[in-house]
Amino acid sequence: MSYPEILTAIAKEVRAEQGKGQVADYIPALARVPGDKFGIALATLDGQQFQLGDADEQFSIQSISKVFALALAYPKEGEQLWERVGMEPSGNPFNSLVQLEYEQGIPRNPFINAGALVITDLLVKHYPRPKAHLLDFIRELSGSYDVYYDHEVARSEREHGFTNAALVNFMKSHHNIKAPVDQVLDIYFHQCAVAMSCRELAQAFLLLANHGILPETGKRILSKSQAKRLNAIMLTCGFYDEAGEFAFCVGLPGKSGVGGGIVAVVPNKLAIAVWSPELNEHGNSQAGIKALELFTSYTGQSIF
Amino acid sequence: MSYPEILTAIAKEVRAEQGKGQVADYIPALARVPGDKFGIALATLDGQQFQLGDADEQFSIQSISKVFALALAYPKEGEQLWERVGMEPSGNPFNSLVQLEYEQGIPRNPFINAGALVITDLLVKHYPRPKAHLLDFIRELSGSYDVYYDHEVARSEREHGFTNAALVNFMKSHHNIKAPVDQVLDIYFHQCAVAMSCRELAQAFLLLANHGILPETGKRILSKSQAKRLNAIMLTCGFYDEAGEFAFCVGLPGKSGVGGGIVAVVPNKLAIAVWSPELNEHGNSQAGIKALELFTSYTGQSIF
Amino acid sequence: MSYPEILTAIAKEVRAEQGKGQVADYIPALARVPGDKFGIALATLDGQQFQLGDADEQFSIQSISKVFALALAYPKEGEQLWERVGMEPSGNPFNSLVQLEYEQGIPRNPFINAGALVITDLLVKHYPRPKAHLLDFIRELSGSYDVYYDHEVARSEREHGFTNAALVNFMKSHHNIKAPVDQVLDIYFHQCAVAMSCRELAQAFLLLANHGILPETGKRILSKSQAKRLNAIMLTCGFYDEAGEFAFCVGLPGKSGVGGGIVAVVPNKLAIAVWSPELNEHGNSQAGIKALELFTSYTGQSIF
Amino acid sequence: MSYPEILTAIAKEVRAEQGKGQVADYIPALARVPGDKFGIALATLDGQQFQLGDADEQFSIQSISKVFALALAYPKEGEQLWERVGMEPSGNPFNSLVQLEYEQGIPRNPFINAGALVITDLLVKHYPRPKAHLLDFIRELSGSYDVYYDHEVARSEREHGFTNAALVNFMKSHHNIKAPVDQVLDIYFHQCAVAMSCRELAQAFLLLANHGILPETGKRILSKSQAKRLNAIMLTCGFYDEAGEFAFCVGLPGKSGVGGGIVAVVPNKLAIAVWSPELNEHGNSQAGIKALELFTSYTGQSIF
Repeated sequence: MSYPEILTAIAKEVRAEQGKGQVADYIPALARVPGDKFGIALATLDGQQFQLGDADEQFSIQSISKVFALALAYPKEGEQLWERVGMEPSGNPFNSLVQLEYEQGIPRNPFINAGALVITDLLVKHYPRPKAHLLDFIRELSGSYDVYYDHEVARSEREHGFTNAALVNFMKSHHNIKAPVDQVLDIYFHQCAVAMSCRELAQAFLLLANHGILPETGKRILSKSQAKRLNAIMLTCGFYDEAGEFAFCVGLPGKSGVGGGIVAVVPNKLAIAVWSPELNEHGNSQAGIKALELFTSYTGQSIF
Repeated sequence: MSYPEILTAIAKEVRAEQGKGQVADYIPALARVPGDKFGIALATLDGQQFQLGDADEQFSIQSISKVFALALAYPKEGEQLWERVGMEPSGNPFNSLVQLEYEQGIPRNPFINAGALVITDLLVKHYPRPKAHLLDFIRELSGSYDVYYDHEVARSEREHGFTNAALVNFMKSHHNIKAPVDQVLDIYFHQCAVAMSCRELAQAFLLLANHGILPETGKRILSKSQAKRLNAIMLTCGFYDEAGEFAFCVGLPGKSGVGGGIVAVVPNKLAIAVWSPELNEHGNSQAGIKALELFTSYTGQSIF
Repeated sequence: MSYPEILTAIAKEVRAEQGKGQVADYIPALARVPGDKFGIALATLDGQQFQLGDADEQFSIQSISKVFALALAYPKEGEQLWERVGMEPSGNPFNSLVQLEYEQGIPRNPFINAGALVITDLLVKHYPRPKAHLLDFIRELSGSYDVYYDHEVARSEREHGFTNAALVNFMKSHHNIKAPVDQVLDIYFHQCAVAMSCRELAQAFLLLANHGILPETGKRILSKSQAKRLNAIMLTCGFYDEAGEFAFCVGLPGKSGVGGGIVAVVPNKLAIAVWSPELNEHGNSQAGIKALELFTSYTGQSIF
Repeated sequence: MSYPEILTAIAKEVRAEQGKGQVADYIPALARVPGDKFGIALATLDGQQFQLGDADEQFSIQSISKVFALALAYPKEGEQLWERVGMEPSGNPFNSLVQLEYEQGIPRNPFINAGALVITDLLVKHYPRPKAHLLDFIRELSGSYDVYYDHEVARSEREHGFTNAALVNFMKSHHNIKAPVDQVLDIYFHQCAVAMSCRELAQAFLLLANHGILPETGKRILSKSQAKRLNAIMLTCGFYDEAGEFAFCVGLPGKSGVGGGIVAVVPNKLAIAVWSPELNEHGNSQAGIKALELFTSYTGQSIF
């Protein structure tokens, strides 16, 4: 089957998943997204693009932004980054304080909230205008200047962001946050509120399928080893407490967000992004995971 | 032995304890208090007062203020107060987040920091000007208008108060804080920064020796049952993770603060306050605990 | 009111509590005890005894036996005992493994199960025939050779004792249990299965009201300081996670068991034992706690 | 480079790793294995075998046996197996009790000790002679009747196996162990004591490279989906708290043991086993991980 045929088949099959999950409702700005949206987009290293459904509609990428922030901070900070955040799966909900306390303020990995907040703190360290810089970076990766911060979502995040404020204050008390608490939170809430489409996401993640080099321009963003590290962390930590299940069903490095987006990478080949706002009990897109599972079945791309 | 003789004997014996502990150094404003200060004051229900050493020098009462805040909030809130904070010993350090997470944001008792922050939140609920009201209340109990907020200490607390900010944000995320986070913290940091002398403290705690009635004016502040409850909580929770040791050595309801103050109550009889800034490994005044242990030995006032 | 009048009044008032709690049902041997039993007995240091109801019926004293085991091990082991078990309230259910893991196998106090198992291990260290010795000791304290091990209860405890087996194995892995695991458990399960009456219990606990000396014979069992230590631990740790509540309601050092017994001590005066098998949600006798609360009200014996 | 050339290059390079780690010393039988042993063996689905060094010397496979036990229990128990053990990374040391308590006795995955003990319990459920059956099964997979239980190691495991005894008793108290505790432990300690060579291990793991079918006989042992599930769990949970690091360095499904063995699988192609007894700080073979990292570099087999 060709990629367009595969996407068509997937779109048809995942319809059965719709209505099974719940749209995220922890902030009003997310709660009112229609649950029946579905978009899928695929970009290959040789420049092809395929898409279907609401693949051009921008949505809140939420935790997917953690990959972008890490890709921006890692080359500047280098390997000493791992003194401030671990790289192992956490086995706990994404926002737990318990593990953080027992491990003296060093988050388990950069994809739980505490870890992402440390990465945000590193952005402040390395960039004079981190919020602007992060947006420019995502625009560069995706080749789209339409990517934007949804300020209403960011405001809504802040108004309900007490758990994140607890995390950042706690890490500050352990000296693992250097910048002012409010600045870190402001950047973090904006980062979560980045709005992109599936098409833009697939394009942006080609970086990680291509060992750290932007395929269109040939510009190196990450070293080969750094790109591999990001893929490894996505594989083991990219899906909250459903990492093992995702490794089984899909078997690709990827990252999900509570906005209903998921991106996955087939190294050396392509990146694929899906969006469907209804979440399963683990906070991952119900139809999105199914779509990626079907994709690896149809293409035989699974690592197993 | 008469009370003056007892105080004299205690002052002499505790000299051997001085130099064994460490002045609190988590904020600069406390770190520069001379370690060799020692004051002791005793007030009886029949109006006698005895004191020795630096008993008139005002110091930062820190956690002792948690008793005052509870005494101010409890009569207004009534028994439903215990739906928002427990009354059992915690068995954990005073600022642990772990227990709080496992118990869904309900602090174990009002004398750990998290519990005290909930009480502060109740002050906001019941008093239009809680900071002013709390100070007036302590002035009324102590009969001294010299009691004041040491604003330098309060500022220093705020600048280093990230753990408390983590606690209050975490409880806010569990809906156990109603007022704005910053307001609760501002009041709390001022409350910790109340400056009083041993003499003023002993006088103020007569309330709890007298079943909730101010001995000088006869004004009822707490019901008899409420006063008993406060005494019970002081006995089991008043000394961080040294409650069991204090019950053994002293055997009286009491409360300590990292400023080096300790107050204890002999129900129906008297209140006694000690101040010596050097702390033992549990954060309680080294010489202060020894002084109270000697007091119960000399007077036979221990409950055992 | 005289003591007989007080007991009569108590017996009448606590009837209202009956039917509110639940008989312990974790082992069959306890589950079939009739819930409406009620006995109360009081023994004074000057040799008087008063009792009412089922005060002569023997029941399973369960955790109350932890006091006897500690009183037997403590004088032999001395103060180094506290290197192997703490003396602070635990703030966790009586059989939690979590705290034990975080504190490297050192139980918080001798009245949680883990701590009691360490004390049992000390009995093996100091006595060639610990099981026989413990029974002899309790018989000596109570002046009654009718005290016995209920072997059916002990067998039932063993058959359901997996949590205790987990605790003792875990501590063995941390080298805080020296004797063979099975031996420690065998003694422990028998210890829990000691059967005594209220009358025998009240008599036995006079030791702790009398600063460590058996009142009838004048024999010193514990030093004065050791007796005080036991009383302090009973006050702060004697009632699982209801220690704070008990300190408030009753305000006396005491110990409860899931068999429905509670003993409390008025230092220098008397010991009082109650038995009513129905337990409240914290595992303490519903009517027993009420009875002791009434006792302190009628006699004014509370420490507050 | 051909496979023999690659193995030769690896053997040469890993010599630099030797002396950096520590032979496991928690039981005497393991502590006396010479640290400088090194063996490597590779088996392909098309029947080729390559090996080097001590590849025919049998050693204690320890936790690698957890894969065999799971492969034996899973087809019998089916998907309901996952009601008794999870499939997500744990983020805690392999023998932690804390997580187990918070998750009510359901272990996080079958490769932490608690999870493996549940699998052992399932072997008792499904096989009348589980110990014999497991050995027969491993012999069948490896095509070698030389595989045996090292009874001295098993005895040594039992003598020091208090943590495992704690785990199994704790799960029994939560009704997640059905067979008698001693029987489960006896089988488990023998399972850990299986002795095999690298050559035998590589051969046995071809099952998982071949989607559940024994390549030599064509016999189906696991369904395709079950084989995929095992691979996914090995990838995310196979290396204690170094799963993320292994995913990065090696990027293959695999399993390590404290005896110094590691096996990894290249789906559709081959299995590779390494043995070097010196362990890194995470309990994985220092030289073994390096050897597999080199293997994926030389062959380009990494999933990233």
